[in-house]
Amino acid sequence: MKLYGYWRSSASYRLRIALALKGLHYETITVDLRIGEQRSDAHLKRNPRGLVPVLELENGEILTQSLAIIDYLERLQPEPPLLSPDPIICAKITATTLSIAADISPIQNLSVLQQLEKQFDAGQEEKAIWARYWIEAGFNALEPAAQQRQTPYLYTIGPSLFELCLIPQIYNARRWGVEMNDYPALKQIESQCLSLAAFEQARPENQPDAPISTEG
Amino acid sequence: MKLYGYWRSSASYRLRIALALKGLHYETITVDLRIGEQRSDAHLKRNPRGLVPVLELENGEILTQSLAIIDYLERLQPEPPLLSPDPIICAKITATTLSIAADISPIQNLSVLQQLEKQFDAGQEEKAIWARYWIEAGFNALEPAAQQRQTPYLYTIGPSLFELCLIPQIYNARRWGVEMNDYPALKQIESQCLSLAAFEQARPENQPDAPISTEG
Repeated sequence: MKLYGYWRSSASYRLRIALALKGLHYETITVDLRIGEQRSDAHLKRNPRGLVPVLELENGEILTQSLAIIDYLERLQPEPPLLSPDPIICAKITATTLSIAADISPIQNLSVLQQLEKQFDAGQEEKAIWARYWIEAGFNALEPAAQQRQTPYLYTIGPSLFELCLIPQIYNARRWGVEMNDYPALKQIESQCLSLAAFEQARPENQPDAPISTEG
Repeated sequence: MKLYGYWRSSASYRLRIALALKGLHYETITVDLRIGEQRSDAHLKRNPRGLVPVLELENGEILTQSLAIIDYLERLQPEPPLLSPDPIICAKITATTLSIAADISPIQNLSVLQQLEKQFDAGQEEKAIWARYWIEAGFNALEPAAQQRQTPYLYTIGPSLFELCLIPQIYNARRWGVEMNDYPALKQIESQCLSLAAFEQARPENQPDAPISTEG
């Protein structure tokens, strides 16, 4: 399989964790978002919406949207499970997953920040305020649930789909200067995740397209 | 079951279609977004993130996030199916669903537009430009796929999860002045959907909390 992504893209990071947890091998192909490669003809042919990640299967099928791809991988390789056999727990995992993947991440991703710049002349500090606003709104709602959890991870004993979205979102939050000490329970879940080999392997700084210094 | 929602909210509209297709009965309870009821203590207790819809089950369980709730309903009542038994088709339905539910809708929903007003002093026309930009970016990528479809609906012979998101997004697009004649294949899918009783029943203007005139 070929993963078209970018080392620092949250959605690519989610998918890398899923692939690593499932023990699936793939080739990394960089789509450099900083120089606009996602809008190249080659990439638009893969995904007309011009986003990463894209997964190309062995048979040439092209899949887009990280959560749709992870759902496909879950059917292909059910172990370890990323959801729960209990339908209510499953609904809670999916809801908190979407509270990040739909209600934080897309509102503060690169293309939205570029549009704020274009339409409202937003500078770097205004973009940071915007990004932090949406991340904090989401994390403020998640932290109490994390504090009251009954399991090592939010709803499960092993990492679920939720943690696959949380860890990249925390990485992104730090880039924007969110004070993660305000979210001790989310940070604790993060530490547990980052101690696992699959999460370590998927980290942005461990990707072949990451610069040697991860600054900037 | 109790559906806490708002007649004109896209995410509530999606869930109403799912409930109607599955033949599930529920009581409608209005959370009036225009007067900020989603931020009331009563609603924040249901959903700490302050969004609609929320579904309260008979046993008192509270579910949030329209797609997570619909996924739960799909397990509860598998007929008619909203996905496909074919994993590749399933991945394509989920990806196009998310291309609306993650990459259009959250970026131009009420809370984002309110934040544009607050942070960038955006007026009505600037908010309309913003909303149209994201809707058109999404629809421009979907229309060619819709034109090349081999089935009455995007990937299926009956409406799928994709159409549950598409129809509310088209309703919203018209409110913002998107030229729907630029999207003939999406419009054709819309006409087919709106000829079905479940979609008709779920329309914003047919809700108990809709004003008698649907202007404004």
